[in-house]
Amino acid sequence: MIKALLSALLVLVAVSSAFGKYIPKTGKRIPQTLSRGWGDQLIWAQTYEEGLYWSRSRNKPLMIIFHLADCPHSAALKKVITEDNDIQKRLDEDFIILNLIYETTDKHLSPDGQYVPRIMFVDPSMTVRADINGRYRNRLYAYEPADLTLLKTNMDAAKKLLKSEL
Amino acid sequence: MIKALLSALLVLVAVSSAFGKYIPKTGKRIPQTLSRGWGDQLIWAQTYEEGLYWSRSRNKPLMIIFHLADCPHSAALKKVITEDNDIQKRLDEDFIILNLIYETTDKHLSPDGQYVPRIMFVDPSMTVRADINGRYRNRLYAYEPADLTLLKTNMDAAKKLLKSEL
Repeated sequence: MIKALLSALLVLVAVSSAFGKYIPKTGKRIPQTLSRGWGDQLIWAQTYEEGLYWSRSRNKPLMIIFHLADCPHSAALKKVITEDNDIQKRLDEDFIILNLIYETTDKHLSPDGQYVPRIMFVDPSMTVRADINGRYRNRLYAYEPADLTLLKTNMDAAKKLLKSEL
Repeated sequence: MIKALLSALLVLVAVSSAFGKYIPKTGKRIPQTLSRGWGDQLIWAQTYEEGLYWSRSRNKPLMIIFHLADCPHSAALKKVITEDNDIQKRLDEDFIILNLIYETTDKHLSPDGQYVPRIMFVDPSMTVRADINGRYRNRLYAYEPADLTLLKTNMDAAKKLLKSEL
């Protein structure tokens, strides 16, 4: 498996060199991933519109992680979420997922302000689940690395859809 | 360079195996890229909000490619755009770029309907450049592979900002 992967990569590298593809002045870059490090094996929606569409059509709740690249709290939460195989499996199988650095124009996604890290759930009926929150009264949708068990409980709550026949 | 890259990949593969990271039931996936094949070396905005923010703050026009994964016209246009180093260089240096599969809620981005492939330019003043269009009267913002020269001309037009002092 690993050998096959490496062979495929070798071929890719060889082919891309042969064709003389565009290389930026500043040197070759590693292609950006949609996961932004929150789980490379998961399938991420690109935008809120895409997430809503998938959520409705597959009847799965949407989980949105708002974060920032240079925020240590985001980085700490990212670390525990990516290293927890149980959460990764649940995200993969039971949720539509989206991670966003830039806020959307939809004010429903920031009921108590725009801060990071912040996790919002949206029901397939397109209702933002403002009732599902963490343990901090001043930042209802914030989670710290120690809150992983609460996050899992909240994921279970989100899986109980508001209108299951939709 | 290639050797170093492969060594780094080897290490990555080894490390990820060692830690027993999450692997989906259906097998290991190749991480999704933000480029979706439109130029892996370019830096893509994830969402329209992100694109607008970068466009304003860096004073560069935003170019948005609407496409679909299973559309042969999108695929044909993608092929010529990725293989043209001149366009790739211009996109990299002179534009903020965004490729979208799902439409946004902003109707200004579909002046004559939602179809793919469709290329829209947005000025850093946040004005959609509905005046910059291709050669088809019924689909003003559609481009075919043979329209690459016209696309370059239009990119030049978009670079002449509406309010250059912004």
